[in-house]
Amino acid sequence: MTKQRIDFQPVGRSISVDKDITILEASRTAGVGLSAICGGETGCGSCRVRLSKEAAVSPANALEIDTLTRDELKNGYRLACQTTVRGDLRVDIPPESLTAAQRTQVEGDEHSFDLAPPVIGYTFDLVKADRENLQSDWERLKEALIASGISKLEQGQLCMIQQLPTILRDNSWRVQVGLRGNTIVNISAPEIPLLGLAVDIGTTKVAGYLMDMKTGKTLARQGEMNPQIAYGEDIMARISYLMKQSSGRNELQTAILATLNRMISDLCQSASGQNEEGTPQQIYTPQQVVEMVVVGNTAMHHVFLGLPVSYLGVAPYIAAASASMDVPARELGLDVSAGAMVHLLPNIAGFIGGDHVSMLLATEIDSESGSSIFLDIGTNTEVTLATKGRKISCSTASGPAFEGAHIRDGMRAADGAIERVRIIDGRVEYQTISEEKPVGICGSGILDAIAQFKVAGIMNFRGGFEADHPLVRKGENGLEVVIASGDRTRHGHDIVLTRKDVSEIQLAKGAIRAGIELLLKETGISADELDHFIIAGAFGSFIDINSAMTIGMFPPLPPDRFRQVGNAAGVGAKQALLSTEKRMEATGIAESVEYLELAHHPDFTNEFATAMRF
Amino acid sequence: MTKQRIDFQPVGRSISVDKDITILEASRTAGVGLSAICGGETGCGSCRVRLSKEAAVSPANALEIDTLTRDELKNGYRLACQTTVRGDLRVDIPPESLTAAQRTQVEGDEHSFDLAPPVIGYTFDLVKADRENLQSDWERLKEALIASGISKLEQGQLCMIQQLPTILRDNSWRVQVGLRGNTIVNISAPEIPLLGLAVDIGTTKVAGYLMDMKTGKTLARQGEMNPQIAYGEDIMARISYLMKQSSGRNELQTAILATLNRMISDLCQSASGQNEEGTPQQIYTPQQVVEMVVVGNTAMHHVFLGLPVSYLGVAPYIAAASASMDVPARELGLDVSAGAMVHLLPNIAGFIGGDHVSMLLATEIDSESGSSIFLDIGTNTEVTLATKGRKISCSTASGPAFEGAHIRDGMRAADGAIERVRIIDGRVEYQTISEEKPVGICGSGILDAIAQFKVAGIMNFRGGFEADHPLVRKGENGLEVVIASGDRTRHGHDIVLTRKDVSEIQLAKGAIRAGIELLLKETGISADELDHFIIAGAFGSFIDINSAMTIGMFPPLPPDRFRQVGNAAGVGAKQALLSTEKRMEATGIAESVEYLELAHHPDFTNEFATAMRF
Repeated sequence: MTKQRIDFQPVGRSISVDKDITILEASRTAGVGLSAICGGETGCGSCRVRLSKEAAVSPANALEIDTLTRDELKNGYRLACQTTVRGDLRVDIPPESLTAAQRTQVEGDEHSFDLAPPVIGYTFDLVKADRENLQSDWERLKEALIASGISKLEQGQLCMIQQLPTILRDNSWRVQVGLRGNTIVNISAPEIPLLGLAVDIGTTKVAGYLMDMKTGKTLARQGEMNPQIAYGEDIMARISYLMKQSSGRNELQTAILATLNRMISDLCQSASGQNEEGTPQQIYTPQQVVEMVVVGNTAMHHVFLGLPVSYLGVAPYIAAASASMDVPARELGLDVSAGAMVHLLPNIAGFIGGDHVSMLLATEIDSESGSSIFLDIGTNTEVTLATKGRKISCSTASGPAFEGAHIRDGMRAADGAIERVRIIDGRVEYQTISEEKPVGICGSGILDAIAQFKVAGIMNFRGGFEADHPLVRKGENGLEVVIASGDRTRHGHDIVLTRKDVSEIQLAKGAIRAGIELLLKETGISADELDHFIIAGAFGSFIDINSAMTIGMFPPLPPDRFRQVGNAAGVGAKQALLSTEKRMEATGIAESVEYLELAHHPDFTNEFATAMRF
Repeated sequence: MTKQRIDFQPVGRSISVDKDITILEASRTAGVGLSAICGGETGCGSCRVRLSKEAAVSPANALEIDTLTRDELKNGYRLACQTTVRGDLRVDIPPESLTAAQRTQVEGDEHSFDLAPPVIGYTFDLVKADRENLQSDWERLKEALIASGISKLEQGQLCMIQQLPTILRDNSWRVQVGLRGNTIVNISAPEIPLLGLAVDIGTTKVAGYLMDMKTGKTLARQGEMNPQIAYGEDIMARISYLMKQSSGRNELQTAILATLNRMISDLCQSASGQNEEGTPQQIYTPQQVVEMVVVGNTAMHHVFLGLPVSYLGVAPYIAAASASMDVPARELGLDVSAGAMVHLLPNIAGFIGGDHVSMLLATEIDSESGSSIFLDIGTNTEVTLATKGRKISCSTASGPAFEGAHIRDGMRAADGAIERVRIIDGRVEYQTISEEKPVGICGSGILDAIAQFKVAGIMNFRGGFEADHPLVRKGENGLEVVIASGDRTRHGHDIVLTRKDVSEIQLAKGAIRAGIELLLKETGISADELDHFIIAGAFGSFIDINSAMTIGMFPPLPPDRFRQVGNAAGVGAKQALLSTEKRMEATGIAESVEYLELAHHPDFTNEFATAMRF
């Protein structure tokens, strides 16, 4: 079959593909981060791309005609998931359809804690082998360890024995051994720093931290998009993709592992670049990474480990495993020290996974006095209420609307996204990320705008627009409010919020508030009894708390009760990486948190209906 | 580059290869078992093939002209290791150059012992997951195990957790768990028999036994050639190949693993074929294999595990590891149950590996009274002397001469090999394997012949031929004795033994006898004090003991002190597969056997010189 050449712009990547595959499939093969919220199923419109008029592709189908505006169709816009390739092609990806280069929260509030690293490096001088001393290399090393008081050495991992002979002879029989309890997980030249990697795999974003296992210092940090976005933006879309594709599990697992391997290499490189005054430059390599901690919600956990997700996606939503786990990194194909282990924090239940446990660990839930809400807002939102000695959690499918998905002009928090909105003197004022010309509107901006709509009387408590308000106009698909007019935007068309956009946010904030209310009800306390309201996650860190209270996403509380802690899941992962005590604490947390399944809760529908009001 | 088609006959395999590679390389790629004793280095002549006169190949080089007789060259014989491909080609491989289809000893004398299998299957009925019972599958299984008194369950292997959800639901929550101590190594439908595989990897041959782990019954057995022969027939040739090729280790390891995977599949198939009267036919699959035991000399052990052999090949010959080991089968790429472990019996020292330990285990060295020699004759020969509460062993490089290598008309013990020789009334009489027309002469035949030469006065004590003896004639390369004349052989030319052939055997038997004598000396006993002389290995089982004594390979002893036990290493491997007690016994043996390194022994040269006499 002749190959067709596709040129993706502005990312500047080219690829040869078979005829008749979709542009979305081609973008995946090319590794272009093209947004595809619904996984190519429902015409969510997020994979809009622009083609030249004479482009050799399939004609627009019914779904495209339905989803795209007439103007868009006229200007060459198409849905990448519906359009198949018929010849060489140039594809222009508008900024709002690109998943790459976004603001990813990798920082979080840190508490100090005692290091108790699971892996410690020891250096040994071995007796050189000669005719009088014919012991095998491995027995020789074991003997040196026993002489140092490490007597219950576990059986050697094959990969360590494979490396030992050459390392011994290259370093004149002086060798550093990384011990994890009684297991050797690394063998290297003496004095090489041992590294650890903490990873928080979010549904949308991945954050990685390269740590020095001995000093506890963060050597480098990095945030990236989760490449699985190409297979659907929320968990359910990905699970549904996996359930239909027999090879699906491997495809998503391969994608995240490739991202992690690249991240590990990048992190080592950027850490190596740091050169303190007067000290010789330290070189870090992935082979020095002797331990990893990975946290994520249950679905991310399963996909990362190659566990089946089919049963997680259908009632009664049963996980394959929930306890904490240690898995050899090489078994997953991670390019780190051959003997390194990956520790996974325990899951709680349903979709509430190790990332939430990690957040609870980092925010020290067990030291918090009074009654507290711990909220991690994401595509899936987890809430835990700690009160009267109980800890109880639930998970709500808040969806990707806060990430800008399903919003007419929505986009994620990248450069040019409108992130703050105020209505001042009857005019809409806004602020964009990096102060660039606006491209779209991201979650915190949408939240602000809707709060302002309410305050300005643009919107009633059900979310309906007042047709005669001066800021409201009739658009192609009903009433809408212009946030930025086309003469000020990068692409030249208006950025608006529609009634439908408000509905999307209404569903999301309603789900979160309903979860909070049901937890309060379950424990018999009222919202104003909450002493602390702790909000984690990238979106949660950038939102205006007052806007969130105004629209009723959070219960009304004095502002000083709120705390925005950034990527607490990442902080907890770092703690668990550096301390076996923290791992035990995490297990204690996971075991003591009760789980409230909202899907079956008799009051959920009612609470949800109430919580959707503005 | 255009590809050349090569057609190997009589095996009937074709392959396309690049121009200018040698026929030997092409045969490896095609998987044709072409003999190559010296690994293509010294012109040993074992890879002789026949080409048609017009074949498009490189002209004969100096080494070929030196190695092949004029007749052979005239008849199209060439060395596969020297001849490069220049066009399409048909290659006829004479039987003596083929490594396949040979007699491989898989049987050995068995003693009865109590089963104590390392893996035991238990069946559990789990409570079905529902809305009231949201436990993860893995926690659910663990709970059932704990309820049965298995409380200290080790952390789950990821591969087992990966399989669990689907197996549970496919079998209505009734599941069989294979437990290895406190580790789950297999999860399956209830009542599936759990299988084990015992493997003896010899330098030349591989023997495999498929066992029922519960009944201890041997379900199927199979003998094959070790595919590493294509890389050199003795250990040192292979080590030298590996030391020169950076990818070499993987190549040899890949070869043996592929053979084992094929063997596992074949064994399961042939076991499934067995249909006892009145019982429904049982189907066995590789996924039921939950445990393996592998024994081999230290080099085979290292190559199998991917351990570096470089340091094993140079003084002071240090092994990477010698203790017994458990390695996940999936880490090696073996197609058995994903959770299965491979147990390796401990090595002693130098090249004396787990196969010799296995032989000592099977022959019950620790129950033997008096003084005993335990001898495993192979390309490498191991000898252990047990006397006065001591056990002391040495290893001698007896070489592949007993396998027919380096012998003018030598071949391995395949159909048509002369295996018995007697000189009766001044005429040479012989017997062939399967009573086919003679093709060559194998080890036991050569041993017989040389013993007869001595008795008949054809040969003096140094191995020189008496030129005027009626059976001695002058051949192309000096004096020789015709064993079978051309009119009676399959290929129509004489099968002879030359003075050089005798020298090869002289070196081999001298090395073995010197080893025995040095062990006797070390313990201060004389040969006639030996109560038992136990001989294992394929060659050792087929030889005529009297011939071996006549040529001085063994010390003169009353015939009833000898015992030929067949493949005792294989028997020991089976015992270790079925009994954890036997594994402990093996460790005890390996730890209590002293090692005598002959290479450094001050008396070795003298003893060797003496032992070479006939």
